[in-house]
Parts: sequence; C-alpha cells; structure tokens
Amino acid sequence: MASSILSSRCSLSSPAAAVARALAPPRMTLACRFQSSVPMPWGSMAVRSVASRNSSLSAVAPETSAKVIDGKLVSGQIKNEVAAEIARMKDTIGIVPGLAVILVGSRKDSQTYVRNKKKACKAVGINSYEVNLPEDCTEEEVLKHIAIFNDDSSVHGILVQLPLPRHMKEENILNAVSIEKDVDGFHPLNIGRLAMQGRDPLFVPCTPKGCMELLHRYDIEIKGKRAVVIGRSNIVGMPVALLLQKANATVSMVHSYTKNPEEITSQADIIVSAAGVANLVRGSWIKPGAVVIDVGINPVDDAESPRGYRLVGDICYEEACEVASAITPVPGGVGPMTIAMLLSNTLESAKRIHNFK
Amino acid sequence: MASSILSSRCSLSSPAAAVARALAPPRMTLACRFQSSVPMPWGSMAVRSVASRNSSLSAVAPETSAKVIDGKLVSGQIKNEVAAEIARMKDTIGIVPGLAVILVGSRKDSQTYVRNKKKACKAVGINSYEVNLPEDCTEEEVLKHIAIFNDDSSVHGILVQLPLPRHMKEENILNAVSIEKDVDGFHPLNIGRLAMQGRDPLFVPCTPKGCMELLHRYDIEIKGKRAVVIGRSNIVGMPVALLLQKANATVSMVHSYTKNPEEITSQADIIVSAAGVANLVRGSWIKPGAVVIDVGINPVDDAESPRGYRLVGDICYEEACEVASAITPVPGGVGPMTIAMLLSNTLESAKRIHNFK
Repeated sequence: MASSILSSRCSLSSPAAAVARALAPPRMTLACRFQSSVPMPWGSMAVRSVASRNSSLSAVAPETSAKVIDGKLVSGQIKNEVAAEIARMKDTIGIVPGLAVILVGSRKDSQTYVRNKKKACKAVGINSYEVNLPEDCTEEEVLKHIAIFNDDSSVHGILVQLPLPRHMKEENILNAVSIEKDVDGFHPLNIGRLAMQGRDPLFVPCTPKGCMELLHRYDIEIKGKRAVVIGRSNIVGMPVALLLQKANATVSMVHSYTKNPEEITSQADIIVSAAGVANLVRGSWIKPGAVVIDVGINPVDDAESPRGYRLVGDICYEEACEVASAITPVPGGVGPMTIAMLLSNTLESAKRIHNFK
Repeated sequence: MASSILSSRCSLSSPAAAVARALAPPRMTLACRFQSSVPMPWGSMAVRSVASRNSSLSAVAPETSAKVIDGKLVSGQIKNEVAAEIARMKDTIGIVPGLAVILVGSRKDSQTYVRNKKKACKAVGINSYEVNLPEDCTEEEVLKHIAIFNDDSSVHGILVQLPLPRHMKEENILNAVSIEKDVDGFHPLNIGRLAMQGRDPLFVPCTPKGCMELLHRYDIEIKGKRAVVIGRSNIVGMPVALLLQKANATVSMVHSYTKNPEEITSQADIIVSAAGVANLVRGSWIKPGAVVIDVGINPVDDAESPRGYRLVGDICYEEACEVASAITPVPGGVGPMTIAMLLSNTLESAKRIHNFK
C-alpha cells in the first residue's frame, strides 16, 4: 500500500497530486504570499529570517520533488478498516461501539465539528449520542451528563467538544471523563503514561496519533532520526513529541521562546509543525530530504476566494515541496486523520471494555 | 547568596573548590582515564569520537574556569529552610510532617539509602516510619502496607524503595500510593501534569527538582536557552526535560538511539546528563560557556582506591571545567539535592494536607 501512495508527488498527475494542486496556490505568484492575520509569537528573529530568504528563494526555478502524504486517502483506508472491525465485532459478540459527544453553547464551528463526527460515526457503524447544553448552563450540569455517560455501558467513548464557555473550568470537566472512555486521550493520567517508558496510555490523542499513523503508513523511519516539533500545545505538540520519542527519534521542541527556530528545524529529518502560524516554516527552515507534517490550519485573507479567506498550513507548501522528500498538504493532510483516529479510539475502547480481540 | 556561591571556581581555594579538588583526579594524568565498566549504549560513533578527541585535548594546557555548582552547600541551605518551616508549622498548628518508607528485601545499597533518608528526616524534624518486608513477601503484603500508610493521617509522604524484587510489578505498587502522598512524584498522573501546560503536578520528582533548584539558586537563566538532556529515564531524564520545557527552554533529548550526540550537546547552553555512563560527555561535547549538570554516579575501577573503585559522573569533569561556565561535581553536586528535595516534598505535602500557608 505504501508504495502506491508514495508514487504521488507534488507535480505528478496522481490523484494525490491532483488534490495537492487543487489546494496549492499557483506556482510562484501566490507562494507564501498569504501572511497570518494573528500575531507571530516567534520573535523578530524568525520574522526577519523569513523576509531575508524570501526574495532569493522566489528567484530560483522550482524543482518540485516532495511526495504528497495523502491524509484523505489514508483516513479513508482507516475508516474502512474500522468499519470492517466493527462489523466483525457486531457479528461475533453483538456489541456496537458508542461515542457520546457533549456540546455546550452554539458556536458555529463546534456545531460543524460535532455534525462531522456524528456523520463519520454513522459511516463506520458507531452509535453516536449527543447532548446539547445551553451556553449559560452550569459546570454541574455538564458533570452530571458526563457521569451518566460514564455509567452507560452502551457508550465506549466520551468527548466534550472544546472550547467550553469561559465560566467553566476545562480541567474539572475533562478530568471527570472516565479514563476508560477518554477517547480524546487528554486526561493527564493518559499523558503521563505516554511520557513514561514502559507504560502505555489507554488512548493516544487523536491528532498526534494521526501524525504518527501517516509516518507509519508511508514507511517513514523514525528510530534514530532527528525530529523537531514546532509548538507545544497539550493537544498536539507535546503529545506528538512524546510519541516521536517513544518511537526512538531524537526530539527537539521549538516554541515561542526559541531564539533560532530555523537553525533547529533545518537539522531535522522529520518536522511536525503545530504552531498555528500561517506559512511560518519556509523552505530555508527545511533540510533537503526531510519529511514535513503540517498540523496547522490557518485562515488567511484571500480576496480571490468567495469566502474572503482560505486555509493554509504552518508550512509554506510551495517552498517546502522543493526541499522536502514528503509533505502533508493543508487541507487534506493531517486534518482528515483526526476524525479517523477518534473512530479508531472508540473501536479500541469498545474492544477493550468487552475484551474482544 | 548566589554571588557568594558563584565565586567558587574549579581552581580556586574556596570551600566549594576544595570539595571539587578532593573529588577530582589529579590534573592531566587521571583526567577521564576512568572508563565505565558497564556497556556503552551510545553507539560506536560516540565511542570513536571520545577516543579521537582525547589525545588532542590532553595536550592543551588546562585553563580552568568553570564555577563549581555546590550541591552539598545548597542542599544544606534547603535542609535549614525546611527545618525552620517544620518548626514554624509545629509551633503554629502542632503538626509534624511524617515520611513512611517501605523497604522490601535486604539489598545493602537500598538499606543505606533508607538509613540516610531516616537520618535526614530526623535532622530536619520529620517523623519517619519504616516497614521492612522480606525479599520473598507477596505483592499483596506490600500493597497492604501502602494502604495503611495511605489512611494514616500522621503520614504525609510514602516512598517505596526501588528496585523491588523481580516477582513484583513495580507499576502496580507505585500506582497504589495515594497521589496526595506520592512524594517521589513517580505517579503517571503527576508526570502527566508535569508535561501539560496550565497544569501543575502535586509533587515534582526529587532528582529533577534538585537539578532545577541548582539552576535557580545559581541564577542561571533557562528561558529561551537551548537545553539538552542526555538520558530519558522515567525518574530523571524525562521529567528534567519536561521541567526545563516548562521553564521555557528549547529542549532536545539525547538517548541511546541518537546518532550524533556530540553535535547536539555542543549546541546547548545547558546540559543535563543522566545517562549513567562514566565520562560519556567529553570537553568537545560542550559549548564554551555552557552550564553542565551531571546526574550520573558511576562506579569505575580504581586500583588506587582502598575500595578498588571510585564514583565519577557522566561528564568528564576535568575537561568540562575548561569549557563550561558552571558545573556540578560528582559526588557533591546533584546527589545531595535528591534527599533535600524529598524532605522539601514531604513538608510541602503536610502543608497542603493541613492547609498550612
């Protein structure tokens, strides 16, 4: 499987490359012209460095060579595998995995995420349960619903859609989810097990697990490689770094206090960027032949788009294509993997609870 | 306080330097000639590198400049602070902190450690409790004693001396210690909180906390600095890396799968070595002016010693003295800090349990 995926390249006419082309701005004219509308937390050095390298890189004729790591394709494969396993479980022991989602308030983006999760559950045969609570409900009401799902044997995974309203303490609510049903893997006990040698978490957080799955399915060696993770959030950067380290990479973490991010990233064989800064990582930040995983999904102004904006990653895709050996596009890279991993974690939970091998 | 400590240097006649001189082998003749009697897990590259650099470095006249980071002195200060706080607590609310130690089997080294811990407790006014169980006792017996200490309100810290006999599962036993009394900080829930932004562990593991305390008390800036941690054990390397990262250093972890450790360490402003390999880190591995914290305590053959061996660190002390700006000796560096931090954690626990500010 890996070899057929690997044949797709930035510039070839494979399905993956077509996806990549559809997502990528026209060569040279739009490359990395989209700048983030959020403040850059990376210090003036990084910004200067980007500015000084831009002109010289733009002058060079592009020689695209990076393979496209096709998250849409891989997530589809994973969903098929999950669906097959769910069917086998139902046929064998009559159990259907269940995922409960708690949504507080009426944020449009959260509603979309929850709707997509429900749709994805349905497609693979997971029962989904949903509770919608008003924006002004109390922490106790949320906790009450978590307790009900904790005790409900038809529910194998519980997910509280973030962000929560400001008057709630996220930590209290996430800690209330039974560790056996914490399919998001955000419980500190899970994170602790992820960090420790000789221990395994019950669940690996979905997006970091998705990044690792892409590396594994594309046969990218991790052991002994230099890996740099950009960003150190609890939900992506930090757990990705722990996973890469568990896989025996030599890991460095770059963050907003790092003085010379480019110097460090340019030593890496594998770069995972989860900074949330549009086009932060330029071609000059990447070692020739490195593998680049882009977790960022950043809206940038684009007058040519009907919506007035478009989504780009943390990596300057056009420039990276010329340097990296493999790269995930945005969208269509890590994004689709997150839901696939949520489905996979829910199945895993049901199998563990019912001791189904 | 820091300035008076900082005046001691490798070659000066301060008390700290005297300690260092007493510990260090005579210049040039013995420097780093002690090789580890344990197998090197660092690959042939590291070993070759050491061999090739050795002769050239020996030929250069030494110019010692590193300040000695005096763990014995700092740990004495911390013990005094802990003792004063315990006296205040006793006077104010009549509570005396208590530390319980469970020792299984009759390993000589473990008995020595437990004896030293009891002695240190006594010196600062902590009540110590001890249970000695035979080598062949069951896991259930150990768990029973943990449960008793968990419920005992006069006990604020519980410590299971490691290693445990082979027939016991360390994970089961350590997990049984109440998180509120886990003064060793080894519980995965504690480690998870250590890893996560916006969360704090109840207890920071003692040796890593000791390393950080030395950096803090010597006014060594961490924020924005490049830090490299060598070794990734659950009890030292990994938690030290998490702590350095929480303090906003840019952290890289070097371990047995790292192909070019010297290249990475030589970029670091702060090196913490917890590899357990005698004299692994040569002068050439260290950036001029770097701060070097040596957690290793390695026995090496020494025919001149009455015991037939001596203890050395992971860092080649003589060579490092010529390159680093500050360094911990072995012994007398990190070593004495571990027990001081255990006492500090026990006090902290008693204060938290009794809500004493």
